[in-house]
Amino acid sequence: MTRAPASVGQRVEEVDTPALVLDLDAFEANLATLAASTRDRVRVRPHAKTHKCPEIAKRQLALGAVGVCCQKVTEAEALIDGGITDVLVSNEVVGAPKIARLAELAKRAHLGVCVDNPQNVAALEASGAKLDVYIELEVGMRRCGIAPGAPAVSLAKEIVRSKNLRFAGLQAYHGRAQHMRTTEERHAAIEAAAQHVFETKRLLEKAAIPCPIVTGAGSGTYMLEVEAGAWDEIQVGSYIFMDADYARNEWAAPLPRFQHSLFVLASVMSLPAADRAIVDAGLKASSVDSGMPVVWQREGLTYSRASDEHGVLDIASAARMPALGEKLFLVPGHCDPTVNLYDWYVCVRRGRVEALWPITARGALN
Amino acid sequence: MTRAPASVGQRVEEVDTPALVLDLDAFEANLATLAASTRDRVRVRPHAKTHKCPEIAKRQLALGAVGVCCQKVTEAEALIDGGITDVLVSNEVVGAPKIARLAELAKRAHLGVCVDNPQNVAALEASGAKLDVYIELEVGMRRCGIAPGAPAVSLAKEIVRSKNLRFAGLQAYHGRAQHMRTTEERHAAIEAAAQHVFETKRLLEKAAIPCPIVTGAGSGTYMLEVEAGAWDEIQVGSYIFMDADYARNEWAAPLPRFQHSLFVLASVMSLPAADRAIVDAGLKASSVDSGMPVVWQREGLTYSRASDEHGVLDIASAARMPALGEKLFLVPGHCDPTVNLYDWYVCVRRGRVEALWPITARGALN
Repeated sequence: MTRAPASVGQRVEEVDTPALVLDLDAFEANLATLAASTRDRVRVRPHAKTHKCPEIAKRQLALGAVGVCCQKVTEAEALIDGGITDVLVSNEVVGAPKIARLAELAKRAHLGVCVDNPQNVAALEASGAKLDVYIELEVGMRRCGIAPGAPAVSLAKEIVRSKNLRFAGLQAYHGRAQHMRTTEERHAAIEAAAQHVFETKRLLEKAAIPCPIVTGAGSGTYMLEVEAGAWDEIQVGSYIFMDADYARNEWAAPLPRFQHSLFVLASVMSLPAADRAIVDAGLKASSVDSGMPVVWQREGLTYSRASDEHGVLDIASAARMPALGEKLFLVPGHCDPTVNLYDWYVCVRRGRVEALWPITARGALN
Repeated sequence: MTRAPASVGQRVEEVDTPALVLDLDAFEANLATLAASTRDRVRVRPHAKTHKCPEIAKRQLALGAVGVCCQKVTEAEALIDGGITDVLVSNEVVGAPKIARLAELAKRAHLGVCVDNPQNVAALEASGAKLDVYIELEVGMRRCGIAPGAPAVSLAKEIVRSKNLRFAGLQAYHGRAQHMRTTEERHAAIEAAAQHVFETKRLLEKAAIPCPIVTGAGSGTYMLEVEAGAWDEIQVGSYIFMDADYARNEWAAPLPRFQHSLFVLASVMSLPAADRAIVDAGLKASSVDSGMPVVWQREGLTYSRASDEHGVLDIASAARMPALGEKLFLVPGHCDPTVNLYDWYVCVRRGRVEALWPITARGALN
């Protein structure tokens, strides 16, 4: 872990760049907005793959979350080391080293995992670990997941037959739906996913297999899952930060609007031409897989191109020219892989550094 | 820094995934190929922004490199902490905190830096640091760099007038040329860059300002710079690894061919359909800014889509189906930002882990 990149009390303009800045007022508003929209309607299990930080997980739990989820065993380790006691690895865990670590972790916390394959169920059972096991359904994402209906029920029977594993329910997450731009498209995708869930639950009931929890959903759709009535628990992640890609979605009822709270603070390091400025934040400071970062509240500056350590800003002819050394706030294109580039959140309130939170699951790949 | 991801002596198939694997035979062959092509023709100052690892820098120095370069002050710190004594920050260093750290470092090593702006020259001079200063010329990359010719000479005069700074020469790097696909296109771009260098050197000579070194070039063009005769030193980085994007270049004389030595080791974690397999290496394990990773020596498997923690492989109908848990080697699309996702190289020779090298400048953003 690199050394702390700022000091408490510092003005944000004094922080060396690039830095990952969390605006605490906006972040806390997002926590409150989520809690208000879900209270008494659905269990909330926020996704820690987004933030990778026990400090943030604790704040989510304080507002009613039942636990968190993550994608990797090593992320679960970092969260449990940081004091979190209920973690769902919302992903398949395959391979002897990972399953051995998962089994160790299950002695220290309430742990869940997803499966989509009978071989994997057998390997988890053989580890002796006491685990909540969710069957991941393919509901339109075209990634992992077993086919809904009979194949899922057959897998559930194997879990029920096992000695150590507890069948905890279904995971039905439609990742592709999260960034469908119109609410209508997202609504149609989630309705279709809900039908797969209802059908699978009906067959489970017929087989006398109780299905305690259906978990899934993301920040771009979660109220659609709530209204569809097939989900018991939502796995929202990005709502705390709101990146530039999510901001390109249509945000309309029943989904509330969240605020940008996560920024890459960058400095203008070169002014080579009247229509171009270079900032010191490139590919290694802000992930570009879902589009370039967006310059925040600085009219006429467009981040148009990233190389490893540089960003090229186009300057519109009407724009105020940036100064050499000027600090700019960038809204990252995609929050999750951007966070994974940093060791620390520089937490800022009204222009002052209030705290530094370590991103203890940064680089937790296994 | 995360804990070591493998043990010396382990078979590579036993290493937990994702892991960043360095094939030492291919890596050493690349070192030798570079040395053979440049010996007695040009100074070599390899770019450590690619590998971020003193262990690799030392092996480059052992084969004749005069020092290394990097892009960030904190990278220079990590390299100097690792025993490297001659480092060029081949980039502009702007802002009080960075310049203060640069000045501290200059007490411990032979340090160079680039400039393209008189304000920045004044700030470096005011720091009191003893620095080699190179003027970065804009030679076609459209990123940083002052215009060649008179503007560069005027900036050189300011450096010459300063008390602490030493005018060390010019940096002329054409980043855009590196991935022009045909050798002919790259040749034309480097010839045009050379004319800018020659013209600026002529004007410097006329102003009686000695220009000790012209530095620049990258792995995709460096022999073209050597043959153009305008460069004294090359800054090759990616040649040690050869990523999938560089492999899409035409490789023809005078450039030698390098081998893929860097791989992301991944596991098949889900087999949801006959035409699709899912691996456990996504955006957080392999940067996709320059295209998807390429599956290595496994006919009919195409990495088509990455999400944060998953890669989707398309399986051609004629291909051998992967097994659940099967290990696959992926050639990353772009080596530099991929390396920056890991804390360790798992160094492998003929299928066995031989060493673990820490990537001590991982996350060195400032």
